[in-house]
Order: sequence, then C-alpha cells, then structure tokens
Amino acid sequence: MSAPQLSVLFFLQMFVILAACRLVGAAARRVGQPLVVGEMVAGVLLGPSLLGLLAPGAQAALFPPESLKVLFVTAQVGIGLYMFFVGIEFDVEVFRRQMRSAAAVSLAGMIVPFALGAALAPWLMQMPGLFGEQVRSHEAALFLGAAIAITAFPMLARIIYERGLAGTQLGTLSLAAGAMGDAVAWCVLAVVLASFGGGAVVAVKAIGGGVVFTVLMLTVGRLLLTRLGAAAERDGRLTPTMLSTCLMLLMLAAWATDAAGIHAVFGGFLLGVAMPRGLLTRELQRDLEPFTVVFLLPMFFTYSGLNTRLDMVNSLPLLGVALVVLAASCLGKFGACWAAARLTGSDNRLALAVGALMNARGMMELILLNIGLQKGIIQPPLFAMLVLMAVVTTLMASPVFELVYGRHARAEGKLRETPPVDD
Amino acid sequence: MSAPQLSVLFFLQMFVILAACRLVGAAARRVGQPLVVGEMVAGVLLGPSLLGLLAPGAQAALFPPESLKVLFVTAQVGIGLYMFFVGIEFDVEVFRRQMRSAAAVSLAGMIVPFALGAALAPWLMQMPGLFGEQVRSHEAALFLGAAIAITAFPMLARIIYERGLAGTQLGTLSLAAGAMGDAVAWCVLAVVLASFGGGAVVAVKAIGGGVVFTVLMLTVGRLLLTRLGAAAERDGRLTPTMLSTCLMLLMLAAWATDAAGIHAVFGGFLLGVAMPRGLLTRELQRDLEPFTVVFLLPMFFTYSGLNTRLDMVNSLPLLGVALVVLAASCLGKFGACWAAARLTGSDNRLALAVGALMNARGMMELILLNIGLQKGIIQPPLFAMLVLMAVVTTLMASPVFELVYGRHARAEGKLRETPPVDD
Repeated sequence: MSAPQLSVLFFLQMFVILAACRLVGAAARRVGQPLVVGEMVAGVLLGPSLLGLLAPGAQAALFPPESLKVLFVTAQVGIGLYMFFVGIEFDVEVFRRQMRSAAAVSLAGMIVPFALGAALAPWLMQMPGLFGEQVRSHEAALFLGAAIAITAFPMLARIIYERGLAGTQLGTLSLAAGAMGDAVAWCVLAVVLASFGGGAVVAVKAIGGGVVFTVLMLTVGRLLLTRLGAAAERDGRLTPTMLSTCLMLLMLAAWATDAAGIHAVFGGFLLGVAMPRGLLTRELQRDLEPFTVVFLLPMFFTYSGLNTRLDMVNSLPLLGVALVVLAASCLGKFGACWAAARLTGSDNRLALAVGALMNARGMMELILLNIGLQKGIIQPPLFAMLVLMAVVTTLMASPVFELVYGRHARAEGKLRETPPVDD
Repeated sequence: MSAPQLSVLFFLQMFVILAACRLVGAAARRVGQPLVVGEMVAGVLLGPSLLGLLAPGAQAALFPPESLKVLFVTAQVGIGLYMFFVGIEFDVEVFRRQMRSAAAVSLAGMIVPFALGAALAPWLMQMPGLFGEQVRSHEAALFLGAAIAITAFPMLARIIYERGLAGTQLGTLSLAAGAMGDAVAWCVLAVVLASFGGGAVVAVKAIGGGVVFTVLMLTVGRLLLTRLGAAAERDGRLTPTMLSTCLMLLMLAAWATDAAGIHAVFGGFLLGVAMPRGLLTRELQRDLEPFTVVFLLPMFFTYSGLNTRLDMVNSLPLLGVALVVLAASCLGKFGACWAAARLTGSDNRLALAVGALMNARGMMELILLNIGLQKGIIQPPLFAMLVLMAVVTTLMASPVFELVYGRHARAEGKLRETPPVDD
C-alpha cells in the first residue's frame, strides 16, 4: 500500500477504534471492568474473532496486514508516553520503605513461574505441535516460565492510575514488583532467543543495556532533569522548547530500552520516575495526557485484541491442556506474589490485592508470545492457549481485585470510587 | 521490516527530527523566517540533499523507505489536527464581510495560473523528458496550471496563526482565498487524473464529494456540533467522552475529504470552522494543541523536506527552464492575487501581503507533484524544477511578507512581534 492509501485508511481505522472503545468501554464500566478491559475487548470484537467471522471482507478491508504496522508504531508511542506519566506518579519514597517487600514479591513472582515452567515443559514437549521442533528442553522451560511470569505492567499501571492508587502502599508495591519482574522476564526472553540462535550478544545487550540504562537514568539523568525542572519553575511555565526537550528525551529513552531488547515501556517509566516533581511534571501531564489517554492509548489495547485468535483452541484435549496452563499461571503468579507479600509483612487483604493485579498478563504477554511464534519457539496451538491464559487472567484482575480489596477499601474511604465512564 | 523494528526506529527518528527542528528552527527565527520554514529546512538537511550526501549509510539506515510511510501517516494526523485549530480560529463573520474580495482573490489565483499553464505547456512539451510520453497537451496544461495555482494552505495558516492574524481582515482573506483556491486545484488534479486513465469517477468523487461535504458540514454538522458545545458549557468542562467524540469527528472528516480525493486538511479545517466557539473549542485547543504543534506538526513539515531532491536540476538549460517556471509561478500567484485584492478594495499594503502569503507552495505542492510523478504525468527533471519552485516560493513568503506588510503593521501596533523561538 502507498503512504497516502495507508493514511486515508488510518483515519477510518481511528474513527472505528475510538467509537468501539467508547461503546465497549461504557459497557465494561457497567459490569465493573476498567476502561482498559473494554478497549481490549473492543479490539477482539474488531479482530478475526468477531468482525472477521461476521464480515470477513469488511474486516480485511479495514485492517489489512500492512496497516497494522502503522497502528503498532503509534500504539507504542502511546504506551511509551503513558508509562512516562505512570513513572511520574510513582512515589520513590514509598518505594524505598517497601523495597524489601517489593523485591520479595517480584522474586517470588519469578521463581515460582520458572519452576512451574520447568515442571510443565517436559509434559508439553511430549505433545506434538506445541513447541517448535528444534527447541531444546531448557529453552522450552525458560520460555514457558517467562510466559507465566510476565505481568501486564501497563495494564496494572492503568488500573492503579485510574483508581488513584499510584502513590499508595499498594500501588507502589505492585508497580515496583511489576516493573522488576517484567524487566527480568524480558531478559530471560533475551536469553532464550540468544540460546535459540540469536547469539549471546542478544542476552548481553538486554541485561547489560537494561542495567546501564536504569543506573544512568536514576543518577546522571535525574541530575540533569533537576535543572530542567528548575528552569520551568523559574519561567513559571512550560515553554514549547522545554516540552519538545522532554519529548525528545522520552523518544530517546524509549528507543534505548527498545533497542536493547527490553521493552520501550521501561524507558518511558524510568524517565518518569527520574523527573523532578513540580511545575514541570504538572504541566507535562496537562499538555500531553488528554491526547495520550483518549487517542493513543486505546490504540495500544485495541491492537492487542485485534491480534487475538481465540478459535485455535479447538479440541477437548487442547482445552484440557489450556486449563492446566491457566491454573499453573494463576498459581505461579497470584499465589506466589500473595505469599511473598504476606511473608514480608503485608496484611492479607493487601497481599491478595497485589496478587490479583500481578496476575494480569495483557498486552506484554501478547508481545512476548508473538516473538516466540515468529521465532518458531512455540507453534500456533500453544500460542492460542497462552493467549487464552493472557485474556482470562486479564479479565480476572479487576473483579478479583474488587472482591478481595476494592469493596473493603472503599467502605473505609481508602479507595476512589470506580470512576464513571466520563472520568 | 517487522512492526517492532519499525517502532524502535520510529522512536529514534522522532528524536532526530525533534532535535533538528529545534536547532534549525531557532536559526530560522534568527534570520526572520518562521519556525515552519526551519522545520522544512531541517527535513531537507536530514534528507538525500545533505545527510544523504555526507553519510549515505547513516541516512539510509535512519530513514529506510518503508519507515517513511509511518512518518507520512502520523504527519497527516498532525496536519489534520492542526487545520482543525486553524478552522476554529477562522472568523466566519469577518469572512462574510469579505466574501467578494476572497472570491476574487482565489478566482484570480486560479485563472491566471491556469492561463500560464496553458501557455507554458506546449513549450515544455517540446523538450524531451519533462512530461510523460502519453500525456496529452490539455492534461499537461491543467497539471501545470494546478502546480502553479496551489497554495501552501497549511503553511499560510501557520504563518497567520503564529502571528496572531487568524481573526483579522488579512488573515481571514488569505485563509478563505487559500482554502477555496486549493480546493479547486485538487479538483483540477482529479480531472487530470480522470482524463489520464483514472476514469470520470475520480473527478466526480472529488468535486461532488467536496461540495457535499462542505454543505453538510456547514449545515447539519454545525447544528449537531452546537449541541455538543452546549453540553460542554452545561458540564463546565470537556469530559473524556466529549474529547473522544471530537477526535472521532475529526478522523471521520479527514477520512471523508481524503477518500474523496481532496486532501485531509480540508476535512480538519471545515470541521474547525463548523465548531461552536466557546468552552468546548477553548478546552479542545488546551488539550490537543501542545502535542500537535510540538510533536506531530514538525513531522509533517520535515517529511516534505525529507523527500526533496535538489540535485536533479543539473544543467544550464534545465536551470533556465526552472527559472522561467519560477517566474511564471510568482507572476501567476503573487501578481494575480495582489491585483484581485486591489481591485476589490484592499489597500496596496494588504494586497501585497495577501499575494506574498498566497505565493508559498510548501507541502501541498509536494503532495501534488508526487502524485504527478507516480502516475507518470511528469518526469523527474520537471518534478525537480517544480520542487525548486515550491521551495523558493516558500522561503520567499515570510521575508516578502515582512518587507511589504510586517514592518509597517508592527510599527502601527497591528501585528504581534515576531514571536521568539520559545513562544
């Protein structure tokens, strides 16, 4: 397709996506799901699983494969920006006080999934057509472990942000544990890819690059950003040059983490964490958040739905395997995170809430699974099972959170009301 | 390239583009050019004409052809949004009072260019390698006429907007004449394409679609939008649903005009004109303008530069022809618009200012020329000459405007100071 053809289509796609997200989002809110779940469901409805079944011609005309690349890129920009705001809301002080607990939760949320991955992999490898034929058993175990371990960091962030929890004990604990856990999961994926043919450099780049980036951003980066913050305070406003500078830094941070092989969301998040709080961050949020949240973000969550094919788990044995994978995933993430939070001093309700949030897989899982599928590590049926697991754990997160924590916390006035659709 | 590869690259491209635009933009301001010219020049510097000469490997790695499509699409979204704001600032009352003058200016700015196109075409067709071999003489004349007639509507809008002229007599006259003239030029292009193999439906769609869209938007559309405006006033704020609705309408308007074959900028502009002024439009500008102007818009103007190759006018005879084309273009647009404004009662200074602004060709010309090149109507040497004409007339606009109008108007306090880089 030529560039002008792509751009005509993009306008139409965005109209359809925004309309679907508003409609399904309003419905999702009615049944107690957050807007973000509505956006993912809207994507599934617009994708091969519904629109593609009802009107395959229209679906193919509206979302031809090449146009999905443009949606993907703009969606990545949106999620990078969004994670920047999440980082800004992240309370470093609260985090310091909870470091031990956060480390324990994220550690447990990795060790148990990888143990389960190691236990399940030999069994799954006996079945034909799940893993790629050249995959060795340790690679299968690591990939499965990473798939179980991963958290929907952006979605977790969004639920926390929507509920006004970003600066609280619960919010900080979950965000920190989610970020650490996911960073490790991406590094493990890099190890698998390295072992599976990419060469050691893939793993070194991801792990080394991630560490170097984090350290630089939180030391030198933070220092330089303080000056920018001071300049904004002095001027009493955010000039276009300052805004442009911040956007440049964001692009650079997203590029650096993305190019290293961990995801662009970390670049955005860490830049946000490193920002000096004050007029600068308030004005940045004021200037950039509406467009990000209302226009760019729906693209990210809808995109993940657009690529979900639920029709591939199509026999009873496969469904059985899928259920085992699902159970193991919930046990490995929800169970392990709950236990770790309890053991490091959180009360039961808070620990359950952390487990519920950490258990959502969302888009990050889908990105990881797509890489696995592209590289031939997993095959379509296992891909579909893991997608199913991702969808179910994502849909579970909000109701379970509400059940174990939300209604109590709200009764005690510790939690913002579920915001209406229009908030 | 895979979608993740494109998105990693996009982050890097945006960093480079934003940085180049800020640097060159600051330099442009210093020599009295508006920011937008800085952004176009930044694009030329990053394109084949400079970076491509100095470091061809780096240039090819940074801007591979497939990635340009993504830049193009996001740039179109940016210009659609921007023209929406320009439409909001457009003063319909002032326009009504000046309708006769605006119609005369736009009419003159079309008739004279097409007459010159008809006069020059036979001469140019005698030279080999300028027009395509299958092109008939009336097609050549019409295409050349459209190329001379076209105005950099977005750039004209941006200069007017930057200087705070959007609601004034000068601003309204130029915007109205520019919009009408360009709409006709796109329709003529559609006629040429129809005659050159696209079939009559191309022309009917563009002309009929454009008329129907304009009428619908300014009657039914305006009526419905009034309700949205009233709802915002009642709520005292712009809710996310309202913001999303406006963005949906914008996408739909841009898609409709783009799909009809006139450009997406008209959809954005007309939607803006149809909006009820008040809290709704103020909040929309507050929410969307910073990201549009600082992030998306530089992409649009840089993109046009990225695609400019100045090295194709490479012999003395060709340079001679290029100069004739340039002179005819300035005469046909600057001269004709000045004369028409004078004859309908504008004073000389205002008429000169209108001519200076209407004479800029900018990105719209490049879009038109690229279509002509793709379809085989013109060949690379003529393409390069017309690009040169577009660049020169664009660079001329601001200094000439300053010379004939700006310095006098500023002395009388009728014009905002050239804004500093940081405004």
